Amino acid sequence: MYLYSENIYTPNGFQKGYLKIEEGKIVDILPSISEEDTAIRYDDKVIIPGFIDIHIHGWATGSFTFQGTESAVNNMSKELVKSGVTSFLPTSGTDSLDRISFQLSEGKKALDNWNPKKGAEILGFHLEGPFINKEYKGMQKEQYCINPSKDIFDNFAKIAGLENIKLITLAPELEGSKEFIKYMKDNNVQVSVGHSAADFEDISDCKDCGIGGFTHLFSGMRGFHHRRPGVVGAALYYDDLYVEFAKQTGLTVRPEAFDIVFKLKGSEKIILTTDCSGLAHVDQEFYHYIRQCKFIPDGDNVKLLFDDGTEEIISKYDYEKVKNLELSYIGSVKNVIKNIDASISEIVKMTSENPAKYIGLYDRKGSIEPSKDADLLIIDDDFNLIDVFVKGEKQIL
Amino acid sequence: MYLYSENIYTPNGFQKGYLKIEEGKIVDILPSISEEDTAIRYDDKVIIPGFIDIHIHGWATGSFTFQGTESAVNNMSKELVKSGVTSFLPTSGTDSLDRISFQLSEGKKALDNWNPKKGAEILGFHLEGPFINKEYKGMQKEQYCINPSKDIFDNFAKIAGLENIKLITLAPELEGSKEFIKYMKDNNVQVSVGHSAADFEDISDCKDCGIGGFTHLFSGMRGFHHRRPGVVGAALYYDDLYVEFAKQTGLTVRPEAFDIVFKLKGSEKIILTTDCSGLAHVDQEFYHYIRQCKFIPDGDNVKLLFDDGTEEIISKYDYEKVKNLELSYIGSVKNVIKNIDASISEIVKMTSENPAKYIGLYDRKGSIEPSKDADLLIIDDDFNLIDVFVKGEKQIL
Repeated sequence: MYLYSENIYTPNGFQKGYLKIEEGKIVDILPSISEEDTAIRYDDKVIIPGFIDIHIHGWATGSFTFQGTESAVNNMSKELVKSGVTSFLPTSGTDSLDRISFQLSEGKKALDNWNPKKGAEILGFHLEGPFINKEYKGMQKEQYCINPSKDIFDNFAKIAGLENIKLITLAPELEGSKEFIKYMKDNNVQVSVGHSAADFEDISDCKDCGIGGFTHLFSGMRGFHHRRPGVVGAALYYDDLYVEFAKQTGLTVRPEAFDIVFKLKGSEKIILTTDCSGLAHVDQEFYHYIRQCKFIPDGDNVKLLFDDGTEEIISKYDYEKVKNLELSYIGSVKNVIKNIDASISEIVKMTSENPAKYIGLYDRKGSIEPSKDADLLIIDDDFNLIDVFVKGEKQIL
Repeated sequence: MYLYSENIYTPNGFQKGYLKIEEGKIVDILPSISEEDTAIRYDDKVIIPGFIDIHIHGWATGSFTFQGTESAVNNMSKELVKSGVTSFLPTSGTDSLDRISFQLSEGKKALDNWNPKKGAEILGFHLEGPFINKEYKGMQKEQYCINPSKDIFDNFAKIAGLENIKLITLAPELEGSKEFIKYMKDNNVQVSVGHSAADFEDISDCKDCGIGGFTHLFSGMRGFHHRRPGVVGAALYYDDLYVEFAKQTGLTVRPEAFDIVFKLKGSEKIILTTDCSGLAHVDQEFYHYIRQCKFIPDGDNVKLLFDDGTEEIISKYDYEKVKNLELSYIGSVKNVIKNIDASISEIVKMTSENPAKYIGLYDRKGSIEPSKDADLLIIDDDFNLIDVFVKGEKQIL
């Protein structure tokens, strides 16, 4: 199969030509093809590598945390491609060990049974907790915040497959963290600091044991003070650590704050995610303090009760409705472009290259290069999606 | 007069040669001089422009705010050169209008009677308040924090000479600030934001009316939050605004916080000052919460009563004793070099070039160039002072 475009974004800049795809892999970019071959022509449209969302609990018609079933994860796969996400890490929250185990066991089935016709690829899992600090729990459940435990991790790894646990978010100030972080490093699990009351010194102390970066910078962590730099200070200070920004709406982190970090860290060290949860699928009444709305489960529907007294009932499985409950990956990207005037090169780094590197998959994801997976987005000048390919399979948008 | 060095720092980099000085001005840097001329030889030592301290209330044996007399300012001049400061703005605090008027009137006498044999040049005055916000008063006096008033300013200007008021620190959220800032701009008075509860939006709103930067960044202002960026957020966000750091001890602002700002703003937009007050000359009991020590006036002495119960009595006019009560300008510079590995070029920008530009005196100060004042420091590799010249006059160190 060939895709033709004048603007194929590669690590060496834009190239014009025929992108050759075989068995789901990128083979080459050719200046011309023989007369008997045909190409899908995208002409002046731009081809970039697909977005990789390493922090996503649920999306639209499926939720890994709220439902936690194989079919929920399959629904996420199916819908995520519509917002440009071609691979992702279903992300568990801080919950009972039984619940997380169930999610991982179901997620594992989805992962094992996945194929490109199903949508975005399931790359493995991100454990957000349960080894986090209740002081900065945010929307996580306080009663399940616990100290790091190798045994508990080993059990999760047994269920999900160790090779499938790609990332864990933890609070490095908790007892036993340092040893645990080393254990993660030995097992090739990336470690992000999040939901943490750590001081700057705690981060410095654990940094070289295997900390790679920070989960949703600014949220769920000790803020910056000039005499107590805290987690945010460490994130800004250490050039080699990555920072994740979840859902760049401007609601959780002001565009100016994002801009300051962008100037400091550059596109090289920022990872964009959604941290979406699949709000339609809440399993109990759930108040979202930023949206100022209560989500109430109601059979196959969800009831939205806003602080202003208005209410709305939506079918959980009506994609056109539920997609509006949270900002999509591409919606967030468009905000970033608007707010900081980011180039395509910078966007590709923050949405594909960096997350692939962060979870150790840059050998097969994160850029348009020979031998890599043909996870591709075709976009217009306004970053609207024209087509999406997952391992060479054209997706239904 | 000629000074010879292999390392004369100019805006075009280091030059080797004979620095020719006539009538207090730099004339040229010559590769050689005639046989009948002699030069002071500094050989491998470095020549840089003198430090300009635009925020200093007092130093060692004199205090503009605590004593406020002509002789106090003269004492500051005399002692400041010993720490590399060749010109300065005596800085008033937030006090009664009578008291500030008295200080300005005495300061004006010192300024008018100044000559290079007296020490560091008095460039004019910095008014730190009284138009500041009591919510962020820091060590300023709450009862004298008032809203901006052109009449009050005009009266100060009448006493000090309008052309001598170079800088004012104010809180732009106070009623009437916007008009007042425009008035300052019309009168060529630089405006710094300080002791301010302003929100980011307040700064944005007034910025183009004539705000140039921020007084002692981080101290006396609303801190940074990712949803309420505040004064600190504006300082970090707006590339064109300067930030002043007072006394880089690491006590008031952690080296890591300074480093983050240095990465963001660069040496181009940072100004180093001391904000020293001449603590030996307190006019009433004064508790210094960072030093954890009470300063008690006692005739020609000052008594220091530390929180740990120890006490010490020092003569107010014993330079060797009182110089240790606060960190000197060159002491602060040495800390900066140690903490952020700053180059000579960067130090010169932050200590001389930027302050000169900030208060509109770069045509005669701030660099070693023909026609500028011969305000010079000769330093060794460890930034120890060998010699100091003010307008070509060699100072007694």
